[in-house]
Parts: sequence; C-alpha cells; structure tokens
Amino acid sequence: MGRWWSSARGAEHKHLHASSFCRGLQHVQEMTHFLFSPQLTPSSFLRIGQLSNVDLNEDIRELETELPRQHPNEIPHNEKLLSLKYESLDYDNSENQLFLEEERRINHTAFRTVEIKRWVICAMIGILTGLVACFIDIVVENLAGLKYRVVKGNIDKFTEKGGLSFSLLLWATLNASVVMVGSVIVAFIEPVAAGSGIPQIKCYLNGVKIPHVVRLKTLVIKVCGVILSVVGGLAVGKEGPMIHSGAVIAAGISQGRSTSLKRDFKIFEYFRRDTEKRDFVSAGAAAGVSAAFGAPVGGVLFSLEEGASFWNQFLTWRIFFASMISTFTLNSVLSVYHGNAWDLSSPGLINFGRFDNEKMGYTIQEIPIFIFMGVVGGILGALFNALNYWLTMFRIRYIHRPCLQVVEAMLVAAVTATVGFVMIYCSRDCQPIQGTHHGILWAAGPALTLHSLSTSGSYNPMTLGMFTLMYFFLACWTYGLTVSAGVFIPSLLIGAAWGRLFGISLSYLTKGSVSPWWEGVLGGIVRMTLSLTVIMMEATGNVTYGFPIMLVLMTAKIVGDYFVEGLYDMHIQLQSVPFLHWEAPVTSHSLTAREVMSAPVTCLRRIERVGTVVDILSDTSSNHNGFPVVESNPDATQVAGLRGLILRSQLIVLLKHKVFVERANLSLVQRRLKLKDFRDAYPRFPPIQSIHVSQDERECMIDLSEFMNPSPYTVPQEASLPRVFKLFRALGLRHLVVVDNRNEVVGMVTRKDLARYRLGKEGLEELSLAQT
Amino acid sequence: MGRWWSSARGAEHKHLHASSFCRGLQHVQEMTHFLFSPQLTPSSFLRIGQLSNVDLNEDIRELETELPRQHPNEIPHNEKLLSLKYESLDYDNSENQLFLEEERRINHTAFRTVEIKRWVICAMIGILTGLVACFIDIVVENLAGLKYRVVKGNIDKFTEKGGLSFSLLLWATLNASVVMVGSVIVAFIEPVAAGSGIPQIKCYLNGVKIPHVVRLKTLVIKVCGVILSVVGGLAVGKEGPMIHSGAVIAAGISQGRSTSLKRDFKIFEYFRRDTEKRDFVSAGAAAGVSAAFGAPVGGVLFSLEEGASFWNQFLTWRIFFASMISTFTLNSVLSVYHGNAWDLSSPGLINFGRFDNEKMGYTIQEIPIFIFMGVVGGILGALFNALNYWLTMFRIRYIHRPCLQVVEAMLVAAVTATVGFVMIYCSRDCQPIQGTHHGILWAAGPALTLHSLSTSGSYNPMTLGMFTLMYFFLACWTYGLTVSAGVFIPSLLIGAAWGRLFGISLSYLTKGSVSPWWEGVLGGIVRMTLSLTVIMMEATGNVTYGFPIMLVLMTAKIVGDYFVEGLYDMHIQLQSVPFLHWEAPVTSHSLTAREVMSAPVTCLRRIERVGTVVDILSDTSSNHNGFPVVESNPDATQVAGLRGLILRSQLIVLLKHKVFVERANLSLVQRRLKLKDFRDAYPRFPPIQSIHVSQDERECMIDLSEFMNPSPYTVPQEASLPRVFKLFRALGLRHLVVVDNRNEVVGMVTRKDLARYRLGKEGLEELSLAQT
Repeated sequence: MGRWWSSARGAEHKHLHASSFCRGLQHVQEMTHFLFSPQLTPSSFLRIGQLSNVDLNEDIRELETELPRQHPNEIPHNEKLLSLKYESLDYDNSENQLFLEEERRINHTAFRTVEIKRWVICAMIGILTGLVACFIDIVVENLAGLKYRVVKGNIDKFTEKGGLSFSLLLWATLNASVVMVGSVIVAFIEPVAAGSGIPQIKCYLNGVKIPHVVRLKTLVIKVCGVILSVVGGLAVGKEGPMIHSGAVIAAGISQGRSTSLKRDFKIFEYFRRDTEKRDFVSAGAAAGVSAAFGAPVGGVLFSLEEGASFWNQFLTWRIFFASMISTFTLNSVLSVYHGNAWDLSSPGLINFGRFDNEKMGYTIQEIPIFIFMGVVGGILGALFNALNYWLTMFRIRYIHRPCLQVVEAMLVAAVTATVGFVMIYCSRDCQPIQGTHHGILWAAGPALTLHSLSTSGSYNPMTLGMFTLMYFFLACWTYGLTVSAGVFIPSLLIGAAWGRLFGISLSYLTKGSVSPWWEGVLGGIVRMTLSLTVIMMEATGNVTYGFPIMLVLMTAKIVGDYFVEGLYDMHIQLQSVPFLHWEAPVTSHSLTAREVMSAPVTCLRRIERVGTVVDILSDTSSNHNGFPVVESNPDATQVAGLRGLILRSQLIVLLKHKVFVERANLSLVQRRLKLKDFRDAYPRFPPIQSIHVSQDERECMIDLSEFMNPSPYTVPQEASLPRVFKLFRALGLRHLVVVDNRNEVVGMVTRKDLARYRLGKEGLEELSLAQT
Repeated sequence: MGRWWSSARGAEHKHLHASSFCRGLQHVQEMTHFLFSPQLTPSSFLRIGQLSNVDLNEDIRELETELPRQHPNEIPHNEKLLSLKYESLDYDNSENQLFLEEERRINHTAFRTVEIKRWVICAMIGILTGLVACFIDIVVENLAGLKYRVVKGNIDKFTEKGGLSFSLLLWATLNASVVMVGSVIVAFIEPVAAGSGIPQIKCYLNGVKIPHVVRLKTLVIKVCGVILSVVGGLAVGKEGPMIHSGAVIAAGISQGRSTSLKRDFKIFEYFRRDTEKRDFVSAGAAAGVSAAFGAPVGGVLFSLEEGASFWNQFLTWRIFFASMISTFTLNSVLSVYHGNAWDLSSPGLINFGRFDNEKMGYTIQEIPIFIFMGVVGGILGALFNALNYWLTMFRIRYIHRPCLQVVEAMLVAAVTATVGFVMIYCSRDCQPIQGTHHGILWAAGPALTLHSLSTSGSYNPMTLGMFTLMYFFLACWTYGLTVSAGVFIPSLLIGAAWGRLFGISLSYLTKGSVSPWWEGVLGGIVRMTLSLTVIMMEATGNVTYGFPIMLVLMTAKIVGDYFVEGLYDMHIQLQSVPFLHWEAPVTSHSLTAREVMSAPVTCLRRIERVGTVVDILSDTSSNHNGFPVVESNPDATQVAGLRGLILRSQLIVLLKHKVFVERANLSLVQRRLKLKDFRDAYPRFPPIQSIHVSQDERECMIDLSEFMNPSPYTVPQEASLPRVFKLFRALGLRHLVVVDNRNEVVGMVTRKDLARYRLGKEGLEELSLAQT
C-alpha cells in the first residue's frame, strides 16, 4: 500500500506544484481521518508484518539447505554458473571489402550528412523519451486520482457504518487487481520488461545480447507495467524503468524501422549494426536518467559508467545532447500540462522540492556523522541485497511459472496496502494528537513522502522507526517481482526516513543537513558512485552537498562491498549472464590465452564447399558464431595461417542469397552482394534451418574473401588473461583469435571464456558453463 | 594592470568574505578617487591602445607573408609539421617474464595492500594540491596587499602635488618588475612552466612525453610564476596552472622519490611505470581543477575527457576521491585562514559569490537568447584564437630568445597597467557621477570583477563596452607570454562583461539570467563541453542553469569549430606535437597499415650479439625506441616470425648490468635481473653513450627471451587506418607491430605514423615529419 494514497498526490499534484507542500498535506490529513477506526488492533499488524517478510526469509534459508533434495522438479540453479544461452554483441566492425568500399566512397560532405543524422536521431531520442516520461507521469496522476475517488467514496460510506475492515478489504483488493493486470502483461507477454530494466541495459551496453530487450513490445509493456505498479500502490518508483524505456526508444529510432510493426522507413540504414546501435542506446539510457531525475549530466555519466568501454568525446557530446533535450521536453510539456506554461521548474519525474538556500552548508564537525550515515547506509544496503538475494534464489527455484508470479505480485500488493493501513491506524492509536501528521508517511506514496521528509514537518521517532522498518522489508520483497518498477525511490525513501530518524535523535543538528544522508541506503544498494553523486546533486538542485554526498556514497559502497555485491550486479550474476567487469581479476596473471581459450576451433577455408558451411552452421552441439578463415590449399611449405574471420550471420546472408558458384566454374565471378543485404537482415538473421540448400548447391563453392574481416584482432598464446581481457573489453570484441608463432589458429577466446573467471573469497574461481 | 588593484581585493579579502561585496566596493571607490586627475588625456589612451594590440596584429599579418624570405635566421616553422623530438609514453605494460613472475607472486592480500596504497597516494595528492592552491591564494593576497600599500602611499604623496603621470609610471614600473621576475624564472629556468600548462597535461595524458613536464622544478617555477603574474596585474587567472601543479604533485608522490632532490623514499616502487603514473597524473589534474574551481566532479570529467582512453570505474573513483580531498583541504585551510574556521563555503580559488535563489530560473522565451549568446561567444572565441594564433606564430619566429620573452612580458604588464589607469581616468571624465562605480571594472582585478559582474551593480554601457574590448585584446596578447598563467578567468570575464552589456541593451531581462552567458566566450576559446558545463555548474553552485549553460557552450563550440580550433588544440598543433585525437580522420578508410607503417623495421634476434645491440642503439639516424624480436636461427623451413618486442630502455638496463654471456659459454645462465633494476632506472634511463661496452663484451651474446614482451599487439597489413588507430588509442600503445600472414614483421606503427594524418579543409592531409 502506501501507494493507494498516491492518489492524494496524483489528484492534487497541480496544487502541490503551484503552491507549497502544505496544501497537499491538508488533503492527506483529511484522508487519514477516514481511516481512524478501532476495528484493527496492533497485534493484527504484527501478524501481517511477520507473514509478509521476516518469516519468509527464514523459510528461504531453510529451503536453501534442505529443500533442493526434496523437490526434484525445481529448476537447477547455482550462482557459480555461466549461461551459454546469451549471445554477445559485436562492437567491432567487420572491416571486409564491402565495408571498406562503402567507407571509401563516403567523402567529407557525405560524412557530415551522417554526422547530422546522428544528431537528429539523438534529438528525437531525447524528445520521445521526454514524452514517454510525461505520459507515465500524467497517466499515473490521473489513474491514481480515479482510484482515490472510488476508494474515498466507499470509505466515506463504510466509515459511517463502522466497517473499516471492509474499507481495508476494498483498498487491498483494488491495489491487488491493478497490480495483477500489471503483472499479467509482464509475466505472459514480455517477461524481460520486469523490474527496473537497469541490469538488462547494463548487460546490453556491456555487450551481452539479452533477447527482446530493446524491442517495441517491451517498451509498451514496460510503460503500462510501471504505470500499473505505481497506481497499484507497490513500494516502487517510476524512475528506473525510464532508463530502459529510453534505451528501447533509441534502439528503435536509430534503426529507422520496427520489426514488430513490420515497417521499414528506409532511413538511417547506415546505423544498422551493433556498434552504432550501442552508441544510440547509450544516449537513450542517458536520456532516460535525465528525464527521470532531471539530471542530464548524471545521465551521461551513468551511460559512460555502465557502457562506454572507450570514452569518445563526440559520442559523449551527443549523449549529453539527447539528455538535455529529454529533460527539456519533459519540463516543457509538464509545465504546460500543469498550467504554468514555460516555467521550467520540474526537470525530472522526481521532485525533492526546493531547499532553503540559507540553511544549506555544513561544517567539518558533521563529517564523522556523514561517514557514520554512509556506514549505516552500506549495512542497510547490504542487508537489503542479502535478503533480496535469498528471495531471488527462492523465486528462481519455485516461482518460475507466470501464474505463480502474478499471484505473488498480488500478494505483495495486498500486504503493502494492509501494512500501510494498519500503520496509520496504530500511529493514531499511540499518538492521538500528532497522528494526522504521521499518516503521511504511509499514505502519501513514496515520491511525495520523500518530498515531505526532505523539506518539512517533524515526525514522531516511533512512527518513523516503524515506517523505516516496514518499508525496508516491503521494498525488498517488491524488488524482483514480475512487475515493471524501480528501486531508486524506495531506497531513497528508506534512507530519508532513517536519516530523519537519526536527525531527530541528534536533535542539535539542523534539519537542513538531512539531505546527504538519503543517499546512503541507495548507495549501499546499487553501488554506483560518480554518476549517482551527480544525479543526486542535479536532482536536488544543489551543489553544496557534493562533498557530503560523495562521502556518504563512498562509505556506503566500501561497507556494502565488504558484505555483498550491488543489487544490479547481483541480479546479473543470478541470471548467469557473461558480464565483463572493468578489469580481469587481479590475481589472474597466472593464466594465459592458451589456458582460457576454446580449442580446437572450427575453421573455414577461404574458398569453401557450401555443404561444409551448411553442416558447420547446422551443428547444434557447437553453435559457434564466428569462424576463422584460413588459406584454402596449404602446401607443405606454406603455412595455413589465419586470413580472416567471418560471422555466422554473414554466412547465413551469403547462403540465403545463393552467393556461390559451381565447382567446375570456379573462374566465374560469384554474385556480388551489397552491404545493404546484410543490413536488411540485421539484427534478426534467419536461422540456418530456414534456408534451403539443395544437394547440387551443396557441392558448389563459396568464396569468402570479400565478406570476411581480413584483419581480425589476434593474440599470441603466451598473452596473459589480463592482457587478453583488456584488448577484448576495450574494443568490445566478440571473437578474439589466438594464434601461434606462425599465425596459425590455435584457439578462440569469447566473452564466456573471460567472464567465467571471477575473484571469489578464496582467490580466483572459475564458473562452470551451462546451457540453462 | 587591472591587477594592481587586486591588492584592494587581496588586502580586504577577509572582509569581503565575511560581509557582503559592498565593503570591498568602498575601498575600490576610495582608491579610484586617487587616480582621478586630469594629467592624462583620452587621446593618450587611444595611442596606448593601438600600440598594445591592434597594430601589432596587423604587423604580424604582414610578417607572415613577407618577412620569412627577408630574415634567414628565423626558426623555420610550419603548422603542417610533426615534430620527431617528442617521445611517446608507454601505457601498455611490457608483460615479460619478470613482470608476470612478480604479478603471480602477488596474492589477493598483497593486491589489497597495493590498492590501499593507491588510495593513500590519491589522498596525499588531494591534500598537497589543496595546500598548494591555498599557498598561491594566500601569497597572492599578501603580496598584492603589500604592493597596494606601497603604491597607495606614493599616489597619496603625488596626488597632492598633482603628478598623476608619475603615479602611473610607478604603477606600471612596479607591475612590470614583478612580471619580469615571474618571466625570468620561467624563461631561463624552466620554459615548460609557461602558460596554463593545460596543453602540456593534455599531451601527457594523451601519451606524449613532454620533457620536464612533471618535474618538481617545474612545480616550483609554476607556483612562483603564477603568483608573480597575478600580483603583476596581468590579465590572467590563477586557476589554470593549478591543473599542472596537481599533475606534478601526483607524478612526484606516486613515484615515492624525487630525482631533482636525489631522494628515494623506497616506497611506492610498484607504481614506477608509465601506466600507473598516468593514472595518478589524471588524479592530480582532477585535483587541480577541483581546487581551482571547487568542482570535484568537473575535475574528474576533465581528466577523463582529456586523458583516459579507457574508462575504468576503479580509477574514476580514485580520481574522484583525490578531487574531493583537494577541494576539502582548500576549503578547510582557507576557512581557518580567514577566521571562519570550518565554515566550508569557499570550495575553490574562484568565487562567483552566491546567487539569489529566488531570481534563478529561466523561461522558454530565453532559449533563443542563449543560443545567440552562444553564437557570439563562439565568434569571439574564434577571433581570440585566430588573433592568438598569429601572435603565437610571430612569437615562435621572432621572440624565441629568453631575454626577448622577458621584455615582451614586461611590455604587456606595463601596457595593461596603463590601459587600466587611463580607462579609469576616462570613465570618470565622461561619467563624473557614476565614475566611482566604473573604476571597479579595471581596478578590482579579474577575479573580483567577475564576482561583481555576476552579482551586483549596474554599469554604464559605454564603459562596459570599452572594458570588454580592451580586456579582450589584452587577454589575447597575454596568453602565450612566457609567464605562468591561466586563460579561464580572463575569458569568463570577457563573457561576463559582454553578457552584462547585452543584458543592459535587452533591459527587460532580469539580471539573474546573465549567468549562463559567461561561458560563451570561454566555450568559444577552449572548447571543452561536458567537463566545462559541470565545472561551471559546480563553480556557480547552481544546477538550474545546466541546460542554458550547455546550450551556450554547445553553440559556442559549433560556431567556434567552424572557424578555428580550440585554443589548447591550436597550441598543441603549433608545437607540432604528435597528439592523437579521439578517432582517426573520417575519410581515412582508404589507408591501410601497409601504407602508414614505417618500414623496414630494425629487428633483433632472440639471442643477439651485444655489439649489434650497441650499434643499433647508438644509431642516431634512426633512434628507434622499440625493437621486434624474431627467432634467432630461422631454418629454410621455419618462418622468422615475431617472438616479442623489447624497448630501448630495457636494452639499456640490460647492457648497464652486463646481462650477457660469452659466445663460447652459451649454456651458462646469464645474470638474472629483477624488475626493481628496471624500476630504479625509470623514468630517466641513461643514454647509450654513457654505457661502456668493451671490445670483448661486444662479442658476447645476450638472451632477450625473459625481458622482451612475448605478446605484443599486432595488426595485419590489410587493417585500415581507423582500425589501427582505434587499437592504438584505446590501449595507449607506443609500438604496434605490423605482420604478414606468416607472422613475419613487415613494419611498425608508432604515434607519429598515426598523428600525421589529419582532416583538413580539402579532405585528408598528411603532415610532414621534422626533427625540430
């Protein structure tokens, strides 16, 4: 719950914006009034609390140790596993003859056109991302308003009759139904739209192809899903999913077509390859951050921190442009919608309100307090992640059927509603005078509560403590549900509540200093540092707190890292994604390319039999995606050295277009293809099974010379793992050929060969590969 | 001049800080009073103005076209030249056996120690950089105060007697003398300390070894030089040199020794190589920006924009840490010095004052104005750069003798003093009532003027226009003088004055909106974008203006780029430095490694004759620094493939330690070296001439196997220039071996081979190489 009341915020949003916070407060006070009825006792709250989370985690721990043996039909899962089902993206251009010919045709003027197109695309990404953010904001506002009116009408009726438990039931049912819809579309239509999408975008930018992650369908489900989750009153934010939305928009626009809609606008064809697409997706993610938090610079930093393996100033600048356009669009549209046309004061979805500048500033005596808050934030974050880890393991094992996932989401929605309801009831019970004030913690919805905690009012420590505790467990339980939702706002809220609580106990501190404390928990959970600092600086519109924010975030990260990984990294690892971190494990110098590479390698000859190619591609046991090309007829004296590298996708296009000649007529020129033929097939190349090759055709020969990349990157066998890793990571490679002293192919290094080495507690450990 | 009055600021700094700006203004008013005397006429001012700059630039243009033929003793110089005198840094570890053995010995715990050392070093860099900034600030304040008292005493005396021209003389002489000292130490002791040092640090981070750039002596000269330039009243800022200072501090600390002081503290020996040193220098540069502008995030971005070819999160974080510590140290020390202990309100050297939060904000109607300001900023910046370009060409040709350089610096100091003096005089002449107010423009010194323009007062358009014009030419003339000084403050000042001028003409605009206009000129001159936006946001303590600032900076960059390059890039190019930009020229796909590489390559055999090694190293005509190592005795059937790469520095250490055996005793084990022997010699390896090798020793054999890097990066001959460039740039290489299909060495690509290709007005152009 906590979100049912977001209706209050939604309906009154315009007022809140136009005037001060107080008017919103009045409404909340009116509403909490309706709920103060003695039907529910404190003990019932306790029971619900236990049911909701604490015991559940105990259960999981038991399940961990015992149940695997008892339930044979569980999905086997192990965090020390690397899945083979994820393909890699190819950020290295295949510089074959076709590509070079095209590039050489592009003169300076033509290049300028391409460059202008890039800028236009970035502007479009910014505008559309901003509009999507507006759409989410406005729809949430209106739906929440509607829900509020319905429930209010009912409560009015039943309060008179004294049946508040019925009100609770209605509230919980309504929330659960809304969340059910949100969960159903995610679970049954597009599961990749679940969660915030940030881990998925991290993976994409890292170079891992997550199926469906940047499709239009995903965007639609994501947007609807996040609206429903927020309206359904879950302990979630609508900010995280904006990053995913921006990325999908970017991927769509930059390709100038939609495969889902079967429309090809025949524009931007030059950008139909992984390299270019990734750059635009970076811009889209940045635009998403920018729209969500009003933090354009933070958005750029987020994209760079997560994605760009190589900092390119031109690219950075375009990303920055997209971010700026995005926040500007959101700002303009919302200002018009809220009736203060062109008053550009709401740059992001999130709204902390304005800080009173006079009270800003901190003294050196507060530094230890900041560090302490960082430590607490780190510990809370680690606890959050650890709990969520067990929960996720439990979900992977037992809640993998979509209908179960929907049921769980509904359960969480109902519990959230109930806990909030009871909390308001209790707080009034204990503190009859100040009670009206406390209601806001639960009733106002996370975003408004954050605003309130940061700017105004004083809270009773007891209520605040209970709120922090409950909200912590609810947020933890919520993250990982099969709904679209973000974890930024909930973790900020926990931090803010805890910070305020701490501030009250150290009452000599001015309340203005609460601000940097918020980030502790968020920092402890997600562990981004530089970008998060800038995002928080921009979102709060305040630079003075840069140093404290950074201090808190750094401490939180150090403390948190001591216990467990960051939330996103944890989820990536739980999905067994072959994610490449910044550097190879520090102790991996003892390994060389010879030890990490896959061998033997399936090579193709420069002029190869079609049948051989088809057989190799059809071999499901290996399912390789890149093949070194070697000289066709090595003499005894000549070395069969590496001549190039060709990709599965390229071979499939060649076979599809029947680019081969009969063996008897080798002197004939085989059909020429254009780069366009490859681009048209990108990115969904047909499987080999869909291409029919007759028995006669199998005997034909195919000349790969002009299609293969003649200068693939190579490493000698002696190269150490860190060296291989650095080359692979810095250039965003997909295949790296290992050669011997005579340039003969001896092995191949791919993403999974590098990602499987990890620094564990006892030094270097190796993940096992699995097809799951 | 303009800086003589910085005494006023200096002496009263404490007051200015504690109270408002007004008290400082009173003092300035008192002082301008002394100067209002009718001895100097407006015409004399005009004469001086012409003498100072306008005619000079005309002269240069004439010189450009005619003089080269007339004066045979000029230094030949051409911008289409690439100097061979600059060596490259090696950011790729030489992973030879010694290195790998050491790395393998390092277990997880030992690595943690190394990591902690890195953090400790970064903290020390931050603290020392902050202290140096404090030192500069405090000494400038006191010296300027002293100068002020001396001059004031004299003016008091002479005003009574009516001899204001004598006052002017005293003022000009005093300024010229101070600048003379500053110029002498730079010109005669350490010329690399001239200017802001930003181009030099850009080059260092890019991978070019600029001699002496990170030495202790340079730091001392830099700090003294910048103090003297500022006290000497030049149109300069003290912010730019902080970046260089931070870098030197970082290089010094991270090596744990000082070659200048001949002290080796035997610590941090692990970091004695280019890779590690560069990382620390990045941190130092960031700490410098942070201390200068109170902009820690901006500092990190600056370092990343300029230096880091590969964004590494761990590194970024350490850089951020150093930045934070730096601004914090500065803030703490200055707060104590100014008597407001622990009131951390002055995070940087620069001080814009506080903006009134109520008046902040902008509306959409102002957007075209921002763009217009950007355009004007871009044009002004381009004009500044173009003028400075001609001036620099003139200086390179004719003012290359140190004594001439000192004379020019003195001339500029005298002219600056005179122009300012006359301007104050005139403005009183024309506007007797408001005159006292105008004086501040010239008298208060750039930093305070900036503060004044941004926060208070109204100015007469005439005075302001004249001020802008004069200051523009003076700043342009000053940049490139043989003194230590920065261009940030002057260009911000021009922008602020022009912005205020424009604001007055569009009087319906609120003055609060002036802020984002400043950056136009700065953006037009230096052309950094993302980092500059963040620096300005942090320096002004305001996030609201993010979008306008970005808009202005982007427009300024686009407009400026249309005309000429950025100032730093221009100076780098004028120095013929082989600087690698972000990408290869877009139209360079037509070039392959075969065409750009240097061939033939001097190779060494794996077991080589000492005499051959000595001869190759002594060959001054080639002076290579890296040598591919091939198999010793290639049979007819075996290919003489590449086995490794060895550096000149490594060979010199081997020869110095007599690591070789007699040919007859090849089975004997040659002397083993440790990595420490190489590190002790780093970075000043002795020249080959200093190593004596006897005739007997020349016949010995040296086994390179365990010292060479057995896995150097290679490219095939077919690789396109952009591909080679990307590999080279992304990994920070120094040597890239080009091999054929059989792994035999056919060529070598070094920095100069890549840097010589440039995109000119008519497409791809090739710079010629020269030994200058």
